[in-house]
Amino acid sequence: MSASNHSSASPAATPQPIYLDDLKVGDQFKSGEHAMDEAQITTFAAQFDPQPFHLDDTAARGTLFGGLAASGWHTAAITMRLQVTSGLPIAGGIVGAGGELTWPRPTRATDVLHVVSEVTAIAPSKSKPDRGMVTVRSETRNQHGDVLQVATVRIVVPRRPDAASLAPTA
Amino acid sequence: MSASNHSSASPAATPQPIYLDDLKVGDQFKSGEHAMDEAQITTFAAQFDPQPFHLDDTAARGTLFGGLAASGWHTAAITMRLQVTSGLPIAGGIVGAGGELTWPRPTRATDVLHVVSEVTAIAPSKSKPDRGMVTVRSETRNQHGDVLQVATVRIVVPRRPDAASLAPTA
Repeated sequence: MSASNHSSASPAATPQPIYLDDLKVGDQFKSGEHAMDEAQITTFAAQFDPQPFHLDDTAARGTLFGGLAASGWHTAAITMRLQVTSGLPIAGGIVGAGGELTWPRPTRATDVLHVVSEVTAIAPSKSKPDRGMVTVRSETRNQHGDVLQVATVRIVVPRRPDAASLAPTA
Repeated sequence: MSASNHSSASPAATPQPIYLDDLKVGDQFKSGEHAMDEAQITTFAAQFDPQPFHLDDTAARGTLFGGLAASGWHTAAITMRLQVTSGLPIAGGIVGAGGELTWPRPTRATDVLHVVSEVTAIAPSKSKPDRGMVTVRSETRNQHGDVLQVATVRIVVPRRPDAASLAPTA
């Protein structure tokens, strides 16, 4: 599971950058993996979320988390890394306009993360014919299949240059 | 602007940890500041969002961003740091259950960020009398007042121990 797995019906699109015209609602993608460890969790927390339950396992035992847990923003950042490097080969990169996040379970030091994504909406721009907005729902899961984060993010995706010029103008 | 500024009508709550019972819809908080720079932007991006517009100013000029821009997840992570260290002195820490994010403008290397937050909803738990869910809408702004991120996050907040024991049981 080291490469992306675009399960669209158009397998030829897999290794190339994907344009708006290549996507269909229901298309699924699977990222590579990222192994967490305690040092990553505490390093991120010290910089961005310095709270006891993200910094020290002993201190975390007496909290809601019951043990060391990654910051949710760390899980979000690793999810982005997995999407950029292997999950979503969008032409021109992944430019998010915003989205929704939930963290059903904490990410632990022993977790190995991967991301499974599905296209849930595609909206060509009315004012800018060279692009559109794609909504992607992504689950960040550990090696046991537990869902650690659900993100629904709106991404700006360019149209294939030739497709835009060939599109009906009416 | 180095300290939090709880503009509730109960100023005595400012320096102490804040419990559910201390909060009212409309309460506002203001964080300290965080100065961005190019090194922070590119270091975060190399680790979590390795795309040209987050890694190199020259490469970014030809993109939608028109110049080096921080990853939105970097803005989110700095926002969390500001909330934890100066913005929201919630008793027991800031434990988010999820939320919504938008990034109206990119964060630039010259930006100095702060966060202005407002309590928009308070819901005591029906099943767990020692806590509740508080919804906080936070704007991450730069030194010009431009809004770079709007986050609406649901936070688990404990009730004041004595308040919980004194609460009506009917």
